[in-house]
Amino acid sequence: MATQANSIPHPTLIKVDPFIPADQQKGIHNRWHPDIPAIATVKPGETFKIECVDWTGAQIGNNDNSDDVMNVDLTKVHNLSGPIAVEGAEPGDCLVVDILDITPFEKMPWGYTGIFELENGGGLFAREFNSRAAKAIWDLNGIYATSRHIPGVRFAGVTHPGLIGTAPSTELLATWNKREGELIAAHADSIPPVAFPPEPKGAYVGQDLAPEVLEKIAKEGARTIPGREHGGNCDIKNLSKGSRCYFPVFIKGANLSVGDLHFSQGDGEMSFCGAIEMAGIITFSTSIIKGGIEKFALKQPIFLPSPIDPMYSSKIIFEGLSVDIHGDGKQYNMDASVAYKQAALNAIAYLQKIGYTREQAYLLLSAAPVESHVGALVDSPNACVTLAIPTGIFDHNILPNPDGFPKRNFGQCAIRSDGVV
Amino acid sequence: MATQANSIPHPTLIKVDPFIPADQQKGIHNRWHPDIPAIATVKPGETFKIECVDWTGAQIGNNDNSDDVMNVDLTKVHNLSGPIAVEGAEPGDCLVVDILDITPFEKMPWGYTGIFELENGGGLFAREFNSRAAKAIWDLNGIYATSRHIPGVRFAGVTHPGLIGTAPSTELLATWNKREGELIAAHADSIPPVAFPPEPKGAYVGQDLAPEVLEKIAKEGARTIPGREHGGNCDIKNLSKGSRCYFPVFIKGANLSVGDLHFSQGDGEMSFCGAIEMAGIITFSTSIIKGGIEKFALKQPIFLPSPIDPMYSSKIIFEGLSVDIHGDGKQYNMDASVAYKQAALNAIAYLQKIGYTREQAYLLLSAAPVESHVGALVDSPNACVTLAIPTGIFDHNILPNPDGFPKRNFGQCAIRSDGVV
Amino acid sequence: MATQANSIPHPTLIKVDPFIPADQQKGIHNRWHPDIPAIATVKPGETFKIECVDWTGAQIGNNDNSDDVMNVDLTKVHNLSGPIAVEGAEPGDCLVVDILDITPFEKMPWGYTGIFELENGGGLFAREFNSRAAKAIWDLNGIYATSRHIPGVRFAGVTHPGLIGTAPSTELLATWNKREGELIAAHADSIPPVAFPPEPKGAYVGQDLAPEVLEKIAKEGARTIPGREHGGNCDIKNLSKGSRCYFPVFIKGANLSVGDLHFSQGDGEMSFCGAIEMAGIITFSTSIIKGGIEKFALKQPIFLPSPIDPMYSSKIIFEGLSVDIHGDGKQYNMDASVAYKQAALNAIAYLQKIGYTREQAYLLLSAAPVESHVGALVDSPNACVTLAIPTGIFDHNILPNPDGFPKRNFGQCAIRSDGVV
Amino acid sequence: MATQANSIPHPTLIKVDPFIPADQQKGIHNRWHPDIPAIATVKPGETFKIECVDWTGAQIGNNDNSDDVMNVDLTKVHNLSGPIAVEGAEPGDCLVVDILDITPFEKMPWGYTGIFELENGGGLFAREFNSRAAKAIWDLNGIYATSRHIPGVRFAGVTHPGLIGTAPSTELLATWNKREGELIAAHADSIPPVAFPPEPKGAYVGQDLAPEVLEKIAKEGARTIPGREHGGNCDIKNLSKGSRCYFPVFIKGANLSVGDLHFSQGDGEMSFCGAIEMAGIITFSTSIIKGGIEKFALKQPIFLPSPIDPMYSSKIIFEGLSVDIHGDGKQYNMDASVAYKQAALNAIAYLQKIGYTREQAYLLLSAAPVESHVGALVDSPNACVTLAIPTGIFDHNILPNPDGFPKRNFGQCAIRSDGVV
Repeated sequence: MATQANSIPHPTLIKVDPFIPADQQKGIHNRWHPDIPAIATVKPGETFKIECVDWTGAQIGNNDNSDDVMNVDLTKVHNLSGPIAVEGAEPGDCLVVDILDITPFEKMPWGYTGIFELENGGGLFAREFNSRAAKAIWDLNGIYATSRHIPGVRFAGVTHPGLIGTAPSTELLATWNKREGELIAAHADSIPPVAFPPEPKGAYVGQDLAPEVLEKIAKEGARTIPGREHGGNCDIKNLSKGSRCYFPVFIKGANLSVGDLHFSQGDGEMSFCGAIEMAGIITFSTSIIKGGIEKFALKQPIFLPSPIDPMYSSKIIFEGLSVDIHGDGKQYNMDASVAYKQAALNAIAYLQKIGYTREQAYLLLSAAPVESHVGALVDSPNACVTLAIPTGIFDHNILPNPDGFPKRNFGQCAIRSDGVV
Repeated sequence: MATQANSIPHPTLIKVDPFIPADQQKGIHNRWHPDIPAIATVKPGETFKIECVDWTGAQIGNNDNSDDVMNVDLTKVHNLSGPIAVEGAEPGDCLVVDILDITPFEKMPWGYTGIFELENGGGLFAREFNSRAAKAIWDLNGIYATSRHIPGVRFAGVTHPGLIGTAPSTELLATWNKREGELIAAHADSIPPVAFPPEPKGAYVGQDLAPEVLEKIAKEGARTIPGREHGGNCDIKNLSKGSRCYFPVFIKGANLSVGDLHFSQGDGEMSFCGAIEMAGIITFSTSIIKGGIEKFALKQPIFLPSPIDPMYSSKIIFEGLSVDIHGDGKQYNMDASVAYKQAALNAIAYLQKIGYTREQAYLLLSAAPVESHVGALVDSPNACVTLAIPTGIFDHNILPNPDGFPKRNFGQCAIRSDGVV
Repeated sequence: MATQANSIPHPTLIKVDPFIPADQQKGIHNRWHPDIPAIATVKPGETFKIECVDWTGAQIGNNDNSDDVMNVDLTKVHNLSGPIAVEGAEPGDCLVVDILDITPFEKMPWGYTGIFELENGGGLFAREFNSRAAKAIWDLNGIYATSRHIPGVRFAGVTHPGLIGTAPSTELLATWNKREGELIAAHADSIPPVAFPPEPKGAYVGQDLAPEVLEKIAKEGARTIPGREHGGNCDIKNLSKGSRCYFPVFIKGANLSVGDLHFSQGDGEMSFCGAIEMAGIITFSTSIIKGGIEKFALKQPIFLPSPIDPMYSSKIIFEGLSVDIHGDGKQYNMDASVAYKQAALNAIAYLQKIGYTREQAYLLLSAAPVESHVGALVDSPNACVTLAIPTGIFDHNILPNPDGFPKRNFGQCAIRSDGVV
Repeated sequence: MATQANSIPHPTLIKVDPFIPADQQKGIHNRWHPDIPAIATVKPGETFKIECVDWTGAQIGNNDNSDDVMNVDLTKVHNLSGPIAVEGAEPGDCLVVDILDITPFEKMPWGYTGIFELENGGGLFAREFNSRAAKAIWDLNGIYATSRHIPGVRFAGVTHPGLIGTAPSTELLATWNKREGELIAAHADSIPPVAFPPEPKGAYVGQDLAPEVLEKIAKEGARTIPGREHGGNCDIKNLSKGSRCYFPVFIKGANLSVGDLHFSQGDGEMSFCGAIEMAGIITFSTSIIKGGIEKFALKQPIFLPSPIDPMYSSKIIFEGLSVDIHGDGKQYNMDASVAYKQAALNAIAYLQKIGYTREQAYLLLSAAPVESHVGALVDSPNACVTLAIPTGIFDHNILPNPDGFPKRNFGQCAIRSDGVV
């Protein structure tokens, strides 16, 4: 018969509490550095679990104003769980990681999506919208998310780690800091900043390390904001549970870290804190392919997507070109970022016709399973990018209505307690 | 019983011959201008067909060298069929176009994909690869394409018009010429050029018009290379047969033109002439939504995709960031175009490990139903874009092989008769 | 350049006229018999086309009453095109057939779905409904079908041959006639009949054969109504264009015949003439696997489905059990046929609540891309079968409305000129 | 910030221990009867969880022989959790149930599939195979299942409750007992039995009820084996997490019960205990549609499937007809059950060619996401049913190999300790 004895649960290698500030917990770190020791070691083939706080480390609450978003301390992000070493992994190898599952904590069945202040975090339209803090809280009901701040919508999550990667080598870290430093130097006064140099303030490694090691990590450690050659904060929604990912290995043990779990996200993650951010538990197994970097020409991770992806076959698709039609009309040269933004602005304008506020539309497109494809990148001077909204996530009909849309009022998302939007 | 009398075929409003140079045929034009008169008029609700030559107007042949691509005359493109006026359409309206079907000519069951010379047409990697002309001829066997120039591959087409749009108003045309002119002026010596000003040489309108009208069109008419507010050369593979598209109307009658039919294309259309270019027949029906531009905030076309899209659920996905890892390592600032290119270069390098030449890989990724998603555009400074190759289009296994790939030789695509690649 | 000379169309091996009675045309036959000679021979690897009349051979017209259905002569069906011999095929081999394309004739862009009279053809509910002739004419607009007889519906076709198979050997034919004869004998008075013995009346082979050969075929030839070990009239909607099918070979040359082309069909084909029946053109290529019957344990065809299948992800699903809940409440013993019928009757009752007539609902479920799955066949005594209606084929919302459905009137399908339903 | 206080977990209304025999636990019952009182009551709109033991109540262990399956006590099944009353539900209403999530217990990450003895439980091929007990244990690794007893296979689960339904009214219960009793009477000596009458032995209700009430329930209560008008043991794999189901309400409160959780199942559930049977936790929310039975002609449940369903687009499909080709060649009359069995036998024979044993193939087809469609039910005398195996669940290529399959040995599943198969 079924017994405790013949039922072996998968071990949890890192345990965290999603309600305690991250910098009071073991097994968490928020910078990339080769000198951060592995907190645990696994053998290839083992299935294991890792618990993660939300990316901010419990700074954001389940409530109805956005003051916590306004005041978020971004020197303390992203809070990652790890590193996990894999026995036998060596530089030049490929670390195969199966993302077997991702779930929220049972005790914390909610997540959030935020618009950050122009001066504190920004986001894709921070300047265009002169962004003030706003947020939506999402209730996680099994496979679905709904929000009291964006009524009329329910969708299945494409749950994924926003951030996952192997540790950089000393050389790779130096390359990052050099190239990003040059970019920062060239745009010194940009708001929001174009990139983030190493920042000792807020740096954290939840291990008992010698002070000089901690200091070195804090001083040199790469910030976690961008994705890089090792993976990192790529925010690829389809690197979801069920995926198999092939990472390059740069140091002995590979030293895998993970965090920034997302219940759902739209392609582009528009508002920066654009996914449904959550704390939760991720299940992995790993294997190693010796010499995989050479075998697969592996300059960056490659992955096989999950067989599980929400099917919303009916969509409405918006086009965008590299002309700032929503702004000053400027012609850009084959710029897919501009094209994505135009498609997004077309979509936001459409959702406003339906009755959502601009902030609700911005949050919804960030968090829902929106698909954005590169259409064409060769028709000079106009890059073309599309953005597709699945119609099945709405409980009302959003297809173009020949009579125009009836006036509807969906309220507003959570905004600052001083009412500024 | 079934009889000729009770069987009414859909009328063909424009007939062309795919084997005759386009500029000897009626109903074709290759510039955008409001003064090009409609060649036919339809009522809303009618189903009708339009025949199209391939975009070059028969310049490329079904043979085994790329000299025709090398010498292609690009002043004569794109050859569009139209314009078709729709009764009742007025500026401010939305023209709804159902793309009901697209088929190649029965007498011409083939298409081509080309890499253009750096100095004559270019393409996404024209400079990186110092591109020399190359091509692949595709045999169109019902829903499938195969190529003797890229063995080991067969895929179902996502057939679509690369180019479809309504006619611009005089004002809109002026806007285009102004903004693109400014871009050209700012990059005067660029090879390939960043954009294309009006060019009387090669301009063509296949109608009996007064010489001064023809001259005006040739002198002012916008080139067809980029997509713009009216649609145009967007090269969106999912605007495929079965789609419903909503176009803004800028002049009375809307004046719809179409051409550049593609049997298949990958997201991005990489090599510029990257789709499987074909001549063929497109079937439409239309309707009008009065005041649709205002109702739907319609600054550019929006569309509903077809329920028919090839299902290749197994994929291998490559990531790309806005760092030129394949080149000089430069850090770009949140540039999705750079990120797409890196993902593409990762994919090309991978296909070369399998045994394809760089040219074959470049052509294949351009033409096959490759999916490219914007991953995230908010993780400064790195935009992240992914590119997914469906594994089911290969008759061999392309998944990462722990033992590395066996050496295979797939020959080479069609190259220049002088052998230069 | 593109020329006629470098463009070789796929050859058409059998040409027919869809407006001429089938028994006046060459290359058509309507019985299965090993002595029907091949009308053409192909080499493995060739792509070729075959034209087909509709299954009745032009008996049904594009009009608004069902008298032609009422009076249809079923001794003359199904009209098949063929046989085509494949060089090198021998008994014991496997004939691989790629169904590359299927299109209606350009001159006949319509099809029909029929309910047959109880006493002339029947159908799944012939007895329950005491069926009288009715039909719907479908306009084929590219990938879509619509019907003036069933308003409010539009769907993409899953185009397939209802009937395709290799020729039986003499022994296999004898087996068929014996086993079906025994069934007929056991249900001698059934209306509609349970099976159909060889029937010289109406038998036809469109070749110049010796009278004694024709007579033998007419006397012994198996009727085409059921599917059998060689394929035949399986009416599997997913054996659609793009599929690859593996047939057992029973005689030298394999002798492939095809007909009964369907623009679309629901799982089950409910009303017997339940698909959208059409005349048209099918494109094939073939290959041979020597000894394939043994290699693959091939007692019946197996196939690989097309990558192209309409995606209607939103569905409403009806359950059915092997209890005649809609009839006398009788408990059947694990009977999946009864379960399918109950699911179908639940669906019909639901569509009637929406406003369709029973005849419209019956025709629609027969013709639309309805999915029917075997749920479970092991929970004694109740087989469970489901039937799923895609909601995206309606231009109105058919999901369960908490307020009930508003009264709507969709008219009626084509019925008999005497008004009897 | 995120706190315990602002994070409200969904309440668990019934808690069970999967390692304790079911008949020692509260909140479980194994018969259907209107007099079983609700163990808990919910308001419409609440999200809540229910824990379930596996259907046998811990009788089967994670080990490597099938003696527990051989000796299973089937008078004690199925063990259901419930009933749950919904406030306001009355006979004639429709109870809407959202199945929001289903997960295994963290402490029990495994499930099983069993072949039962011909004389104790049976299964679809119990007689054909003279079945002896066998089983496969599946490791549940996040979204995937693998089995040491069926190597070479990994697939994503379509997790669903095999059994879910509302309580019958007294009248409905009487109808069931009458009609099934008549069937039993007509097949008195059948092995396995055709149906199961009320059976006091093994009957269990985990509530403190008066002895006479318990006795009445045990004496009259319907067995849980078949699905019926209220839902019940329908074993529909697509009624999976994410589905919305509409149940008819027969008694006040509706009294919903659920159990028999399946991690995965193939259409048909072939071997009876054919799913991956597991213990676990199901999450629900409910609502009520007043008068829904009348509004939707609701004789049985209808449901909307989940947007989440594993996508395995590449398949190999087997056909089956209502002729017993694998047995005595008998011709059946339009019998879809026979047709399903033939398709299944074709698939089993094919998998044996690849190297699996008959028992492994039988278990695999029962448990994997196999799709079985009703092809056609109108081509007298042959029903046609298809069975599709997704190729992507194998780590080796199972497509028809022109050279035949290489000899491979996948061992054997768990069999009886006496070695009898």
